[in-house]
Amino acid sequence: MPEAKQLNIAMIGSGFIARAHSNAFQQVGHFFEIPYSLNLKVVCGRDQSKLKAFARQWGWTETAADWQEVVGRKDIDVVDIAVPNALHAPIAMAAAKAGKIILCEKPLALSLAEAQAMAAAAKGVPNLVWFNYRRVPAVAFAKQLITEGKLGEVYHYRSYYFNQSGVDPAKGQTWRYRAGEAGSGAIGDLLSHSIDMAIYLNSNIVELSAMKHTFIPGREVDDAVAMMARFANGSLGTFEASRFGVGRRNGNGFEMYGANGSLAFDLEDMDRLRVFDATEPANLQAYRNILVTGPDHPYSANFWKPGHLVGYEHTFIATLGDFLQNLAKGEPFHPNFDDAVQTQAILEAVEASAQSKNWVKLRSR
Amino acid sequence: MPEAKQLNIAMIGSGFIARAHSNAFQQVGHFFEIPYSLNLKVVCGRDQSKLKAFARQWGWTETAADWQEVVGRKDIDVVDIAVPNALHAPIAMAAAKAGKIILCEKPLALSLAEAQAMAAAAKGVPNLVWFNYRRVPAVAFAKQLITEGKLGEVYHYRSYYFNQSGVDPAKGQTWRYRAGEAGSGAIGDLLSHSIDMAIYLNSNIVELSAMKHTFIPGREVDDAVAMMARFANGSLGTFEASRFGVGRRNGNGFEMYGANGSLAFDLEDMDRLRVFDATEPANLQAYRNILVTGPDHPYSANFWKPGHLVGYEHTFIATLGDFLQNLAKGEPFHPNFDDAVQTQAILEAVEASAQSKNWVKLRSR
Amino acid sequence: MPEAKQLNIAMIGSGFIARAHSNAFQQVGHFFEIPYSLNLKVVCGRDQSKLKAFARQWGWTETAADWQEVVGRKDIDVVDIAVPNALHAPIAMAAAKAGKIILCEKPLALSLAEAQAMAAAAKGVPNLVWFNYRRVPAVAFAKQLITEGKLGEVYHYRSYYFNQSGVDPAKGQTWRYRAGEAGSGAIGDLLSHSIDMAIYLNSNIVELSAMKHTFIPGREVDDAVAMMARFANGSLGTFEASRFGVGRRNGNGFEMYGANGSLAFDLEDMDRLRVFDATEPANLQAYRNILVTGPDHPYSANFWKPGHLVGYEHTFIATLGDFLQNLAKGEPFHPNFDDAVQTQAILEAVEASAQSKNWVKLRSR
Amino acid sequence: MPEAKQLNIAMIGSGFIARAHSNAFQQVGHFFEIPYSLNLKVVCGRDQSKLKAFARQWGWTETAADWQEVVGRKDIDVVDIAVPNALHAPIAMAAAKAGKIILCEKPLALSLAEAQAMAAAAKGVPNLVWFNYRRVPAVAFAKQLITEGKLGEVYHYRSYYFNQSGVDPAKGQTWRYRAGEAGSGAIGDLLSHSIDMAIYLNSNIVELSAMKHTFIPGREVDDAVAMMARFANGSLGTFEASRFGVGRRNGNGFEMYGANGSLAFDLEDMDRLRVFDATEPANLQAYRNILVTGPDHPYSANFWKPGHLVGYEHTFIATLGDFLQNLAKGEPFHPNFDDAVQTQAILEAVEASAQSKNWVKLRSR
Repeated sequence: MPEAKQLNIAMIGSGFIARAHSNAFQQVGHFFEIPYSLNLKVVCGRDQSKLKAFARQWGWTETAADWQEVVGRKDIDVVDIAVPNALHAPIAMAAAKAGKIILCEKPLALSLAEAQAMAAAAKGVPNLVWFNYRRVPAVAFAKQLITEGKLGEVYHYRSYYFNQSGVDPAKGQTWRYRAGEAGSGAIGDLLSHSIDMAIYLNSNIVELSAMKHTFIPGREVDDAVAMMARFANGSLGTFEASRFGVGRRNGNGFEMYGANGSLAFDLEDMDRLRVFDATEPANLQAYRNILVTGPDHPYSANFWKPGHLVGYEHTFIATLGDFLQNLAKGEPFHPNFDDAVQTQAILEAVEASAQSKNWVKLRSR
Repeated sequence: MPEAKQLNIAMIGSGFIARAHSNAFQQVGHFFEIPYSLNLKVVCGRDQSKLKAFARQWGWTETAADWQEVVGRKDIDVVDIAVPNALHAPIAMAAAKAGKIILCEKPLALSLAEAQAMAAAAKGVPNLVWFNYRRVPAVAFAKQLITEGKLGEVYHYRSYYFNQSGVDPAKGQTWRYRAGEAGSGAIGDLLSHSIDMAIYLNSNIVELSAMKHTFIPGREVDDAVAMMARFANGSLGTFEASRFGVGRRNGNGFEMYGANGSLAFDLEDMDRLRVFDATEPANLQAYRNILVTGPDHPYSANFWKPGHLVGYEHTFIATLGDFLQNLAKGEPFHPNFDDAVQTQAILEAVEASAQSKNWVKLRSR
Repeated sequence: MPEAKQLNIAMIGSGFIARAHSNAFQQVGHFFEIPYSLNLKVVCGRDQSKLKAFARQWGWTETAADWQEVVGRKDIDVVDIAVPNALHAPIAMAAAKAGKIILCEKPLALSLAEAQAMAAAAKGVPNLVWFNYRRVPAVAFAKQLITEGKLGEVYHYRSYYFNQSGVDPAKGQTWRYRAGEAGSGAIGDLLSHSIDMAIYLNSNIVELSAMKHTFIPGREVDDAVAMMARFANGSLGTFEASRFGVGRRNGNGFEMYGANGSLAFDLEDMDRLRVFDATEPANLQAYRNILVTGPDHPYSANFWKPGHLVGYEHTFIATLGDFLQNLAKGEPFHPNFDDAVQTQAILEAVEASAQSKNWVKLRSR
Repeated sequence: MPEAKQLNIAMIGSGFIARAHSNAFQQVGHFFEIPYSLNLKVVCGRDQSKLKAFARQWGWTETAADWQEVVGRKDIDVVDIAVPNALHAPIAMAAAKAGKIILCEKPLALSLAEAQAMAAAAKGVPNLVWFNYRRVPAVAFAKQLITEGKLGEVYHYRSYYFNQSGVDPAKGQTWRYRAGEAGSGAIGDLLSHSIDMAIYLNSNIVELSAMKHTFIPGREVDDAVAMMARFANGSLGTFEASRFGVGRRNGNGFEMYGANGSLAFDLEDMDRLRVFDATEPANLQAYRNILVTGPDHPYSANFWKPGHLVGYEHTFIATLGDFLQNLAKGEPFHPNFDDAVQTQAILEAVEASAQSKNWVKLRSR
C-alpha cells in the first residue's frame, strides 16, 4: 500500500451539520479504504470561544474567524461549506477560484442563477453537495434494485418529508426562518433532499404543479410545500414537505410503485427497505421488510456485521468515502454541483408554480 | 320490547357488493338493537340462473329480472341499489317517486347534475349512500378524537387509496373500465371514498388542483388521480388514488397532522388507529397503535370482545345498523344523498382541474 | 344441486362463546357450499328471560332450561356445547349416547381421564372440538407452507398467549376462576389453544417441563403458565400463557424457525402471516408480512376479496364449514375428540410437571 | 477546563469486537465530556501483518505480539481484553496484578470459579465488562421508566436472543464453537447478554430450570438454550437464546409485563422502545413505539438530533463514556467484574440444570 496523500481540510461552520461533517472526516478512514490521510486543519466560525471548544472536541488543529482568508490559504486542499445557505455561493466561488476541492451543504444555492454560476465556477475542481441521504444503505439498495429492473415500468413515485421543527414559534428566530439567509423554508430545507432523491431513484421531472403555505403569520419562509409532478419516465409524482408534521422527527420517505414491484423507505427506520415483488407466486406476495445491514447490501462491508445497525452519521461517512475513492480514481462523483443545479431548477419551478398557481414545465437538460 | 316492524327489502344487483349488502341485511339484527325485522324479499338481476343460486345462498325469497317492476311493487319498503354507477340515477329516481327508503352504492352518480337531481327527488324519503368506510371502527374513533379536539388546529390531511386492480389489462373488459357505465375510473371508484372521508373527518374542500392519468392505452377511464387541496379549516390536503398501486390490495388510508397531535389509518390494517399526542411529556411522545376493538371504542359493544377483530363486512353492518336506528328515531342519517352531492361536486372539480390544469374553487355550500 | 338436508341444532349455553357459535350457524351457509340446511332449533340456558332475548337476537326457534331433556329430543341432530368446562363431559356423554353429532367447546374436559371417556363414548358420532384458531386463514396458510416443506427441519417452536383478563381481581368471581367449573386457569383457557396449534403445526410433544403461578392470593386457578418442551420432530419448544399480559388483549401467537425459513403469527393481527424464506438471495431475505386475504390463501375464496379483512367470527364459520363439508363426504374432521385427548394429555403433564418440578415424558400415541 | 489526563491504552485482540472497541476509543471524546485524552498506544495480536493493517486503520500507534509483555508495560494505563473467552482470565489476572484499569469482553469467564477469582483480583482497579447493550438508548430508557415505577409490580419478563450464526456448519471451525476457547455456545455468547440485561432491568434470578441443545452433531458447544425462571421481585421469566433462529440477525429482545404497563424492545429495531401504559383511559391504551433519539432520552444529548438514528457502535461509545465519567468522579461503574460474577453464577446454574434436568436455586447474594 502506497503512502497516503495528506489532504488538509478547512471547514467553514461549526453548527449541527458541521459536527456531522467533522465526524465524517474523523471516521471515513476507519470504514473506507482511501489513499488519503485527512488532516483536520482549520475550522472557521464566528464565536471564537465556542469555536475553540468545538475544535478541541472534534480534533481541528486551528480555528479561524475569516473564511476568505482561510479559503485563500495555500496549505488548504479541501474547503467544506457548512454554513447557512446564503453563504454557500460566495464561499464556493472563492474556493473554486482558489482551486480547492469543494464540499458544500445543501441546498446548493438561493436561486437557480446562483447555482448555475457556482457550477460554472467549480467546473475545474472536484466537488460534492451533501445530499447525504443518497448514501443511506437502504436508499442505495433501492437504487440497485431499480437499476436491476426489479420495479419495471414505474407508475407512481410518492415522496414526503415531515418533521415538526416549525411548530414552535420561537424557532422563527433562527437563520432557517429568515428569507435572507435560508432563501426558503421547507422547500430548501426538506424538499431539496426529496428532489435530489427522486431524480436519483426515478428520473427527471418534466412538469409540476405546487402549492406552499406558511402557517405562522409573519414568518418569512414557507412552512410546507406540496407538489404534483410528471416524470420523464412516465410516472406520476406527489411530493409533500413540511415542518408542521407533528409526530414526525425526520420523516423523509418515498414509495415507488412499478409494474413488477414496489418499494418503500422511511428515514426514521433507516436500516430497512420495504420491497414488494409482484413476480412471485400470488400467495407469497407481500412487502418484505429488509434489514439492509448485509450481507450483500451497499456499505455493509464497510461498517459492522449483519443485524448491527448504522445511523445518521454513516450517511455522511459513506458520502465522503465514495467521494474520496472516486477522487483517487479520477472518476466523477454524484451528487455534485451540476446535479444540484438540476435540483435547484426544480425548486425554482416549485416557487414559480406556487406563485402562479399554474403547472410549470421544466426545460429538458 | 315492542313487536319489530317488518321492512321488505328489494336489492337491485347481485355482484360482489350485493353480497356485502346481503350479509349486512342478514347480520344487522345480530349486532344492533333495531326495532325492525328485515325481510329479504326480492333480489333483482340479469342472469336468472346465477341469480337463483345467489338468492338461495343469501336468503332472498324471490328473484326478479326487471328492476322497474320491482321498484314499483307495493310490498317493498326499501330499495337497495347495488349495480353499476350508470344505473344509480334511474333506479333511485324511480324508487324516490315510489316513496321507498333508498340505499345506494357509491359514487352516487355519474355527474354533479345527476346527483343533484337524485338528491332533490329523494328529499322526502330516508336515504343512505354506502360510503361504508366511515363506519370502520377506527375511522369512527378518529372522528371522535378529532371532535374532542385531540388534534387541535389541523395542518395537513393526507389521503391515499391504492390498489392494483387496474394493472391486469384484461380487467378493461369489466364495467368499471367503461366510461358509459362507470363514469370514471379511480376517481369514482376510489377517490370518492377518500373525499367522503376527508369531508367527514376534516372539513370541506375549498380549492383544488388535480391531475389524472390512464396508463393503459385505449382505456376509457382514468387509472390514477392525484390532487392538492385547501380545506375550509385552513389545512392543506394531498390526495392520491390509483389502480396501479402494485403491492396494495385495499390501501385506503389517511394521515392527519395537527397542533396537538396526529392520526394515521390504513384499511389494510383496519382494526387499528395510530394516534400521536403532542401534549404528552416529550420523551413519551410516539404513535400509539391502538387496537380499536374495545373497550370504549365505536361499535365495540356491538361486535365481539376486546382483542377480537372485525373485518370488511362489519363496516356495512354498522352503516346499516346506524341507519336503521336513526330511522326508528326519525333522525337524519349521514352520509345521505345530500352528503354525496357534496362529494360529487368535488369529483367534478377534480375532472375539471385535471382537464384545464388550473386550480378550481368550490362553491361554499 | 340436490335438496339440502336439514340439521336441527340444539345449543347448550348462551354466553359470549354461544354468540360466536350462533353466528357461525347463521353464517356458514353464506360462505360455504354445504348440502345442509341448519335449523337453529333450541337454545338451552339458565336465565330464561335473558335466554329469550338471546334466542330472538340470534334466531333460535325455542328456548329450554334442561339440557338433559334437550339432548334426549328425537328431533335434534346436533348438540353444540358452549358451557363452562365442567359441564362438557356430562353433556357430551349424554349426547353421544343419544347418537347426536357433537360440537364441544375447548378445552374438551377437566382431566385426561374424562377426555378419554368422552372420546370413547363419541367414537360412533361425528364430533368436533372448537379449537377454532386452526382455521384462522393465516394459520391454515402456515400449515400449508410447512406441509410444502418451506421450513425444512424445524429448530424452534415458540408459542405465547397473553391477555390481561386476570388482572382485575373482580374477575375472580366468574366461572373461569373457579376450579370446580373451569378445572384450571390460563392452562385450560389459553394454553390448550396453544397446544392444539403446536401439535397441528409442528409435531407431538414428547417431553416437557412446566411452571405455573397464581398472582392473586386465594384464586383457585393458575394465572400464568410457562413450559419448555421437546417435540417429536426434534425441535425445541417454549410456551407461555398468561392472563397477566398487560397490554395484550388476545395475544395468541407463535414463531417457528427452521432450516429453510421461519414463520410468525399473532392473533391480534390475524389477517397476516410473517414468512421468512432462507433460500432466497441473501440481500433479499427478510420477513414478508403477507396479507392472507387472497388470492390463493385458505378460505379467501369463501369470504371477500383480496385486501378485504376477515375477523374473529370467521374462524368459527370456517371451522363449521369444514366440518359440514367433511360430514357430507363422510370424511373425518380435525380437531375432534381424539385430537383433544392428545392435547388434554399434555395439559395434564403440564400440571404434573408444575407440581413436581420435574420434566415429564409423554407416552407416544 | 483543566488539561485532560492522558490514558494509554493497550488492546489485546484485533477481531470484529476489537474494531468496535477501537471505534469507541476514537469516538468517545467526540460525544462525551471526559477529562481524559485517550492514547491508542498498542494493539496486540497474533498475525502481525494483519495487525499492522488493523493498527493503521484504527489509529493504534504500536503493534505487539506478546500480551504478557504488553500488560506489564509501565506506560500502559488501561488494558482492554477483546480476545476469545478462554483468555479473559489470564489477561485480566495479569492486568489486575499490574494495577491496570481493565475493560473485558463478555462473558467474563469460562466458569463461576474463574469469574470469582478475576473479580477478587480486580478489586483494587477500575473495571468494566462490555455488556454494551445496557447502553442502548432504548434499554437505558426502559430502565428509567422501570425505576420511575411505570410498570408497577412486574408479572412477566420474557427474554430472547436469536441469530442464525450457527446454521452454517462451516462456522464450527471458528473459536466460538470450540469448548476450550469459548466455554459454551449460545449460553456464553448470547444468553450472557440476556441475563445481564434481565438482572439490570428486572431483578435477581432466584430459581431456574433450563434445557440446551446442539443441532449439529459433533459440535462441542450448545447451539440453543431455553430457560424458565423466578425472579426475586416475584415475576416469572422465560429465556431463549439460539444460533438457529433463522431469519434473525441480532434479535436480542425483551418484553416486560407489569401491573401498570408493559415494555418491549428488540435490538434489530434498536432506536425504539415499545411502551404500554395501563393507567391511561382504556380507549387510548396501546403500545407507543417511541423513537428514543430525544428529546429527553438517555444519550440523546450526546449524539445527534431527535429523529437522527444511532447504531450498534454507539452502545460501546456510551458504555465507555459512562465508565470514564465515573472514573473521573471516582464512582463505581456497572456492569463491572462483580456484576459479571452474578451473571456467571446464573450461566453455571443454567448448565447444571440442563444437565440434571432439575430446577436449580441460586444463592442469594
